[in-house]
Amino acid sequence: MGTAKKIVVVNGKFPMHRGGYLLNPTIAFETWGELSSKGDNAVLIFSGLSPSAHAASSVADMTPGWWEEMIGPSRPIDTNRYFVVCVNSLGSCFGSTGPASINPETGRQYLSDFPVLSLEDVSRGGWEVLQHLGIERLYATVGPSMGGMSALGFEVLFPELSEKLLIISSATHSLPFATALRSLQREMICRDPNWSEGNYSTEIFPAIGMRLARKLGMLTYRSADEWSDRFGRNKITGELSKNGTVAPYFEIEEYLEHHAEKFTGQFDPNCYLSLSRASDLFDLADHGGSVEAGVSKIKASHAMVVGVSSDILYPLHQQKELADLLNYGQREVEFVGLTSIQGHDSFLVDMDSFCPVVRRFFSS
Amino acid sequence: MGTAKKIVVVNGKFPMHRGGYLLNPTIAFETWGELSSKGDNAVLIFSGLSPSAHAASSVADMTPGWWEEMIGPSRPIDTNRYFVVCVNSLGSCFGSTGPASINPETGRQYLSDFPVLSLEDVSRGGWEVLQHLGIERLYATVGPSMGGMSALGFEVLFPELSEKLLIISSATHSLPFATALRSLQREMICRDPNWSEGNYSTEIFPAIGMRLARKLGMLTYRSADEWSDRFGRNKITGELSKNGTVAPYFEIEEYLEHHAEKFTGQFDPNCYLSLSRASDLFDLADHGGSVEAGVSKIKASHAMVVGVSSDILYPLHQQKELADLLNYGQREVEFVGLTSIQGHDSFLVDMDSFCPVVRRFFSS
Repeated sequence: MGTAKKIVVVNGKFPMHRGGYLLNPTIAFETWGELSSKGDNAVLIFSGLSPSAHAASSVADMTPGWWEEMIGPSRPIDTNRYFVVCVNSLGSCFGSTGPASINPETGRQYLSDFPVLSLEDVSRGGWEVLQHLGIERLYATVGPSMGGMSALGFEVLFPELSEKLLIISSATHSLPFATALRSLQREMICRDPNWSEGNYSTEIFPAIGMRLARKLGMLTYRSADEWSDRFGRNKITGELSKNGTVAPYFEIEEYLEHHAEKFTGQFDPNCYLSLSRASDLFDLADHGGSVEAGVSKIKASHAMVVGVSSDILYPLHQQKELADLLNYGQREVEFVGLTSIQGHDSFLVDMDSFCPVVRRFFSS
Repeated sequence: MGTAKKIVVVNGKFPMHRGGYLLNPTIAFETWGELSSKGDNAVLIFSGLSPSAHAASSVADMTPGWWEEMIGPSRPIDTNRYFVVCVNSLGSCFGSTGPASINPETGRQYLSDFPVLSLEDVSRGGWEVLQHLGIERLYATVGPSMGGMSALGFEVLFPELSEKLLIISSATHSLPFATALRSLQREMICRDPNWSEGNYSTEIFPAIGMRLARKLGMLTYRSADEWSDRFGRNKITGELSKNGTVAPYFEIEEYLEHHAEKFTGQFDPNCYLSLSRASDLFDLADHGGSVEAGVSKIKASHAMVVGVSSDILYPLHQQKELADLLNYGQREVEFVGLTSIQGHDSFLVDMDSFCPVVRRFFSS
């Protein structure tokens, strides 16, 4: 299997939003479709915390992407019409510089010496990709989940670029419940004895912390009602293990186990910690002293904000609030509240609900 | 400070619901008020997972109990009128026999050799206390949270005893979302290297697992809206620690830290695991093949089922379902859905909402 991943190297010192810098960092990205001669059909996508830039398959990499049904010829983000760019977040571990990367000034991995990451740095990473591609304006900026915050940061830092803005299952800031969940996930990793202050290796790796964090993640990404429908009280075995063994008994336990196994080893723990904390730190109110002042810097003439009622990480009222904040002046704003039962992750799985909404955004 | 704790020893083999037995187990309890000469004013209370039998203060022990505002002279459960008995659940660690107790057959702690605990065993423990006290019938059986399931088990196993039944923030069974949360809490403990297959000591103690489990517990006991109101995005420090350190930055993180510190060391990990799994295993449908068949064994002539809309552990629709199931024949059934924002724990903290409801139950 080939790779569709492209890399831009940002020469010199890349200043970090909360201080410090990265020397010659790389930003990984993928593209689909062609930039029009007028340069007016580019779409920039920021991803959630864990995905790479591989949002959809292409000739160069036929592996299905994380938003496969959304992006492609005649799909809601139609690559016959648009030149679509998806960036791997700075701080991640799929080609963009992150804590697992080599610091060119020391020749060693950054690990816990990586500067404090902000989603504004992720936003700037996206901008660097556009510079590299010669894109001067965007038809649309799109961000689901953490990517929605990166997109909001992008709109505030580079306000004249985007004509349209699509924010999905995200918010201007995290609520304390979401911060509590992420903080606990981070603690699970850092309390793993193999964490070694971030200086783990492939041999001594905080796999237990990562698997616990992933399981808690699944609890926040999906919803109680979905699991009631899917699993009910189904058991996978008639045999109860002794106290204090973790063998699954209910199907829901096996499901979590499956997801923990799949995730652990794929994602670098230091990168996870950086992106997780960046999600907690982001606050549009930091850009001007209030959330209203922050939003007032966003210049896109058309915005859509989408959320789902079963999301406990970024609850629906946060998307409604963002839509209300955006709704001033001449801007056209649409708020869409969906009733998907798959929780926060609905945008990745409930395509029957999401595809028509995204299609409408791109058709209007 | 004295103790109000009393102990009954159940002589001989106490048969466990899922097999095995305990030899001469003890059940701890406390009482308030006086049994009437007719013996018609006794109230039996089963507790949630973590509390002891000390539900309220008394002359013998002035320490406030876990339901202090609910139980006492002229309080909603009025000890001038009722003889109130609260039992420490079998399997717990506050006087009742549990995994931390000495097995008289070996002279050593049960630890992971404790038989699989069921809430039906907890129910039977309550019945043994009534036998000891010479109580032949109950004015009311009361159970909040896990105690609600123990109370339902009690009603099914000893159906002719209770005139009235009060179930609060509980259900006929746990939903997979709740099981996922508890399963992850148990895994946090068992993955702690100090867990030692349950053979930990005070020196080598799974404190990390317990603190993580407690933090996740707090996330399920309270609610997102309460925390948004209480903490918002308040920070306790202006200084961001390096990546991979767990120093609190937001107030919500400090709050979780405080609760983790308070809990760890108070509760025995093996006992926690037993009670946690018993909560997942309980299913009224096991008593007759369907939840309807199980409920049909309950003979109390009056029932009230109370829940709160912000509860994510036992969501409100479960209390509504239980009330509907109980509502047949001559039984008077009242369903009360409260809008407290403190989540599952509302019955412990939102006394302004809960006291009038419980008072009405006992006055009617």
